[in-house]
Amino acid sequence: MFRSNSLVALTTDFGEGSSYSAALKGAVLSVNAAARILDLSHRLPPQDRLAAALFLDDVIPYFPAGTIHVVVVDPGVGTNRALLCVLWRDQALLVPDNGCWTTLEAREPVQAVYRLTESRYWSNSISATFHGRDILGPAAGHLSLGAPPDALGPIADTWMRMAVPEPRVEPDRVLGQILHVDSFGNAITNLTAAVIAGSPRCKVGAHRVDRFVRTYGDAEPGTVVALIGSSGRLEIAVVNGSAADRLSLRVGDPVQVTRS
Amino acid sequence: MFRSNSLVALTTDFGEGSSYSAALKGAVLSVNAAARILDLSHRLPPQDRLAAALFLDDVIPYFPAGTIHVVVVDPGVGTNRALLCVLWRDQALLVPDNGCWTTLEAREPVQAVYRLTESRYWSNSISATFHGRDILGPAAGHLSLGAPPDALGPIADTWMRMAVPEPRVEPDRVLGQILHVDSFGNAITNLTAAVIAGSPRCKVGAHRVDRFVRTYGDAEPGTVVALIGSSGRLEIAVVNGSAADRLSLRVGDPVQVTRS
Amino acid sequence: MFRSNSLVALTTDFGEGSSYSAALKGAVLSVNAAARILDLSHRLPPQDRLAAALFLDDVIPYFPAGTIHVVVVDPGVGTNRALLCVLWRDQALLVPDNGCWTTLEAREPVQAVYRLTESRYWSNSISATFHGRDILGPAAGHLSLGAPPDALGPIADTWMRMAVPEPRVEPDRVLGQILHVDSFGNAITNLTAAVIAGSPRCKVGAHRVDRFVRTYGDAEPGTVVALIGSSGRLEIAVVNGSAADRLSLRVGDPVQVTRS
Repeated sequence: MFRSNSLVALTTDFGEGSSYSAALKGAVLSVNAAARILDLSHRLPPQDRLAAALFLDDVIPYFPAGTIHVVVVDPGVGTNRALLCVLWRDQALLVPDNGCWTTLEAREPVQAVYRLTESRYWSNSISATFHGRDILGPAAGHLSLGAPPDALGPIADTWMRMAVPEPRVEPDRVLGQILHVDSFGNAITNLTAAVIAGSPRCKVGAHRVDRFVRTYGDAEPGTVVALIGSSGRLEIAVVNGSAADRLSLRVGDPVQVTRS
Repeated sequence: MFRSNSLVALTTDFGEGSSYSAALKGAVLSVNAAARILDLSHRLPPQDRLAAALFLDDVIPYFPAGTIHVVVVDPGVGTNRALLCVLWRDQALLVPDNGCWTTLEAREPVQAVYRLTESRYWSNSISATFHGRDILGPAAGHLSLGAPPDALGPIADTWMRMAVPEPRVEPDRVLGQILHVDSFGNAITNLTAAVIAGSPRCKVGAHRVDRFVRTYGDAEPGTVVALIGSSGRLEIAVVNGSAADRLSLRVGDPVQVTRS
Repeated sequence: MFRSNSLVALTTDFGEGSSYSAALKGAVLSVNAAARILDLSHRLPPQDRLAAALFLDDVIPYFPAGTIHVVVVDPGVGTNRALLCVLWRDQALLVPDNGCWTTLEAREPVQAVYRLTESRYWSNSISATFHGRDILGPAAGHLSLGAPPDALGPIADTWMRMAVPEPRVEPDRVLGQILHVDSFGNAITNLTAAVIAGSPRCKVGAHRVDRFVRTYGDAEPGTVVALIGSSGRLEIAVVNGSAADRLSLRVGDPVQVTRS
C-alpha cells in the first residue's frame, strides 16, 4: 500500500517558470518543508487531457512506490468536478476527476480512489480558480507527512474515464493517427508494435515512409524513418532532424500501415 | 527570526535551461552540497523589474519560514548598486537593490535588510557580469548552512522602492491596465476586487466584456469573461482559450471598469 | 576519488517538460528514491554536441565533488557508440562517447574513464532509442547509492575528443566566431581575454563595435558593447537589450578583433 517516500512530483499545464507552478511548490512546502519537489512538466498544452494522458502513461510507470504526483490539467477548475486521490502501484496521484490518468488502468488496476472532501487538509482560503495551489498542493504536503490516503475523503466508486484513440484495424491495413510531436520533431502515433506486426510500409499524410529501422542511428542523417520508439509506439522521425518540420506533421494527422 | 530550512529557491531572468541558471545552482551547492535547490522561475522577461515584482508578490507569501530566495533580475549588474539580504516573514531574499521585492512591504513590513559587504561569503573570484553566481549564490549557500543574516553585512536603512502601477479611481469608473499575460493567455490587471466593487461592466482596449464569472468553468468554452483570479486581481480570460490571442491583448493595455 | 553526495544533475536535449526528461528522473529514483535530482538543462539544441560542450564547460566546474552528472546529447543512440563514466575533479559524468565533455580536459585531466558494460546496473529491458532512461539513469541511481565507478565496467583507454573551434591569430588581427547566443541575446564568441589582448576594436559580421566595457551597466541602455563575459569569453551585447536581434547575429557568424 501507499507509504510516502517524500517525493512530490508535479505535472501541470501552468507554464514553465510561471507564478502558478512556483506558488504550487510553496503550497506543498508550507505543509511539509521537508517534501522533495520534483518538476515533471509544466508545459503540457493548456487544458489538453489527451496530452496529459499520454504523458502520464509514459512517465508514471517509471517512478518508485511512495511517490506523490500532483497532476493539474483542469479545464473544469472551480466547477463541481471532483478532486481525487488515486493509488496505483503504491504511488498516489492527486488529480481532478477528468480521466487523464485512466490510461494507467490498462496497465494495472488502481488500488483505490478517494474523493478529496476533508477540508482540514486544504488551505484555509480556497480560490475559485486555483485548486492546485489551494487543495491539491496542501493535500500532497499532508500525504508526504504521512497522512493516510483514506483520511482525505471517502472511497470513490466511479470516475471519468478516457482512452487514447484506438487505431482501426482492417484486413490489409491499419489506420491510426499522430498523438504527439516531441521536442525533436518525432511524430508519435497510436500504432503499437503488435498492431503493425512488423510491416515496413507506412504512410503518414501524403508521405510514404519506406525505411523501418531499429534506432535513429541506423540510417543516414536526414533520412525519413519509421521505428518503434521508447514508449512502444510507432513513430515517424528524421535522423538528426525534425520529421514534424520536414513533413509538416501535426497531432491528429492520419497514419496508415499496410500489413504484408 | 530567520532559521534556514535548507531550501534555496531561485527566481531569475537567466533563461530556462541556460548555463547561467545551472552555474548558479553549482555555486550554491559548492558551499553547501546539502542545500535543497528549487527552481521557481528562470523565465522572467530580461531586466523586467515589474514582472519580477508581480511574480514575487504572487509567490513568496506561499513559502514557509526558513526559505532562502535568490532573486536575480538585475539590469545594473556590475555597477555600484548594492546587493541585499531582506528578511520577510522569516524568509530571506538575496537580491540586487532594485526594488523588485518591495511590493511585499505592502503586505507586511520587512524584519531587517542587510547590505552584502562581507566578501568571505562570496566566491574567491568575482566577475563583473554575474553576481548571481559569484556573490548571491555563495551567500545563499552560507545562509543555508546556518550563517546568520547579520554576518553578511551591515544593516541597510534605505533601499530602492517600486510599486505596481495604481489604477485611477474616478467617480463613475476605474481606469487600470494589464500587468501580465499568463501562459494560458489570461490578462491580469492592476484592478482588485475591492476597487471594482463587483461591477460587471468592463472594457479592455476596444472590447467590451459583459460576462463576469466566479471561475472559468462557469461559462461555455470560447466565452470572453472577466473574473477575480487567484492573485485577487481582475483578469480577462477566454474559457479554455487565450484572451491574449483572441483580443490581441498586451501588457500595458488600458482596462476600464464602470462602477454601477 | 569519487564519493557520491547524492546529487544527480541532468543535462539533456530532451526538451523542457518532455516525458523523456520526466521518465529519466523516474529511472534514477526507481533505483535510489533518496537521490537528489537537479535539472541543469533539458533545452540543449537537439544533437548539438558543440552547444553541449560549451554548456558543460561553463557549468561542471562550479559543482561540488561527489556530484553525478547524466549528460544526454546523443545523436548516435542505439548504435555501437560506447557509454562512459568519466571521473573529473571527483565528480562523475555518465555520458555517451561523443566528445562533448572533453573540453573539461583542457582545464584538468580526467581521473578515470570507464565503459558502461555491466548490465546489472541497467534497467531490465533496454530500448533501442532511449539509453538515458534505460542505462544512464539507472547507473546514476546505483552510483548515488554508493556503487563504485569501477564496478560499472572496464577502464576505457581512448574516447572521442572534440574541441571548441579555435580562433585564427594573425599579426594584426584575430578571427573568431560566435559560439552561442544566450537568452538575453548576448553573442558569446570563441575569443578570450588573453587572445584579444585588450583591443577595443571589434567587428562582428558587418558591424563595428567601438565600446569595450567592463560590465553591461557601464554604458547607456541600448548601446552595442563588447565585453569579457562571465565565462571569460568576448561577447557582443546590447545594454538591457538583445544584440542578436539588433545586429541579426547567429551562431557561426565571424568576429574579428584588430590588435592595436
